[in-house]
Amino acid sequence: MTLTLQPIPNIPLIQPGDDLAKVVLQALETSAIPLQSGDILVFAQKVISKAEGRLFNLTQVIPTPRAEELAKETDKDPRFIELVLRESREVLRVRPGTIITEHRCGFVCANAGIDHSNVSGPWGNEDDWVLLLPENPDASAEKLRLELQKLSGAPELGVLIIDSHGRAWRNGTVGVTIGISNVPGIIDMRGQPDLFGYRLRVTMIAAADELAAGASLVMGQAAERTPVVHVHGFPFMLRDAHFNELVRPKEQDLFR
Amino acid sequence: MTLTLQPIPNIPLIQPGDDLAKVVLQALETSAIPLQSGDILVFAQKVISKAEGRLFNLTQVIPTPRAEELAKETDKDPRFIELVLRESREVLRVRPGTIITEHRCGFVCANAGIDHSNVSGPWGNEDDWVLLLPENPDASAEKLRLELQKLSGAPELGVLIIDSHGRAWRNGTVGVTIGISNVPGIIDMRGQPDLFGYRLRVTMIAAADELAAGASLVMGQAAERTPVVHVHGFPFMLRDAHFNELVRPKEQDLFR
Repeated sequence: MTLTLQPIPNIPLIQPGDDLAKVVLQALETSAIPLQSGDILVFAQKVISKAEGRLFNLTQVIPTPRAEELAKETDKDPRFIELVLRESREVLRVRPGTIITEHRCGFVCANAGIDHSNVSGPWGNEDDWVLLLPENPDASAEKLRLELQKLSGAPELGVLIIDSHGRAWRNGTVGVTIGISNVPGIIDMRGQPDLFGYRLRVTMIAAADELAAGASLVMGQAAERTPVVHVHGFPFMLRDAHFNELVRPKEQDLFR
Repeated sequence: MTLTLQPIPNIPLIQPGDDLAKVVLQALETSAIPLQSGDILVFAQKVISKAEGRLFNLTQVIPTPRAEELAKETDKDPRFIELVLRESREVLRVRPGTIITEHRCGFVCANAGIDHSNVSGPWGNEDDWVLLLPENPDASAEKLRLELQKLSGAPELGVLIIDSHGRAWRNGTVGVTIGISNVPGIIDMRGQPDLFGYRLRVTMIAAADELAAGASLVMGQAAERTPVVHVHGFPFMLRDAHFNELVRPKEQDLFR
């Protein structure tokens, strides 16, 4: 079966309070892209965060002494670091220019996913506005999915919210899932035989992350302009899922 | 632009010495899938390794004392560990059931990518045969690409060789690139402005790995049966590339 990943054109710049489901269905209609049961819509986190009003102004943030200290170590704005700490469970690495933490949602990334580029707020200096990740990406994905199903009449859709993360060992960022609704995070193949009756070597496929990476590729540089990707032909059954299945428990992680 | 990822049907089980370019073009023709200039073919490493005869029989391997020692720590066959060490530059982590090394090609993965499942050799007990990664995946990709271009008449193609790797922090495996020809490994966006004139946050996109992940998704469980994926609509310009651009230099890696 062919997998098609189509960035949806004609999505306007999203503002706080926008109804993303309506905006996306309108854009699909404009482009005559059919939305079928079993399809998945992949959203760049930025549009979810914007629609949910997760804009913060740095002039309103008072850094703690710990944030001041980490700001020195990283050469970053202490108010920015304060927000990173508020969004994180644990600080993993600190270097000049870099802070890597475990986000309160469980994933590991730089800057707690807080975004400076391409953000402007409703007042004051553009430079002072930053965009935080959605409060609860799984809940955002679920809400969007149910609304998309209701408005479109498609009986079963899937929704992913993705971000771009750096990785250990390898250069460059790849799209990864941070919120999920009705898409399998992991496909568990343990115990299934292969062609010769051996058990398979690869037994746990991070299907949602593989899709996130592919969708991120077609969003390309301009995630602001094509922040939603329509996916047809996902090769596995849709099912109830939570982001948590993609998180390697700390005690099983050899690289923290 | 829509990205389509189509697993190519009707590819027979590959045997040592097979001409993969011919086999793939035949399968594309059988399925009436057009191969156009700018398209990319993504190969599961297993078929490259098999065609190149990278089968080894464990009964022919004499483990060193160090392999014997690591075999005890990992509960693995010392002859298998010996091959892992021969294929690796450095051992990163050793635990019962797990050995993670830096492969001689520069990537970090479990078991140096050596495969036990689904391998049978020309003689002896099936259980004794293992499959090593290609000797030089970039060279394999380049050779395949040139042959595919010559035989098909398509003036410009790209080729990726991919494997499935586990990751720090996250559960499950994803497809990643291990060999590359004429596909950009990294898209460097540094210095490019976004919509509001800010510099972009995500500046180095691991495009080849994002494509590898998407292609891996459609190979799914049966990489042996659909080990080659036809890609149309890759959103960036093809260009000369080497796997090395995807390797984070050891001294810049905070998680080793």
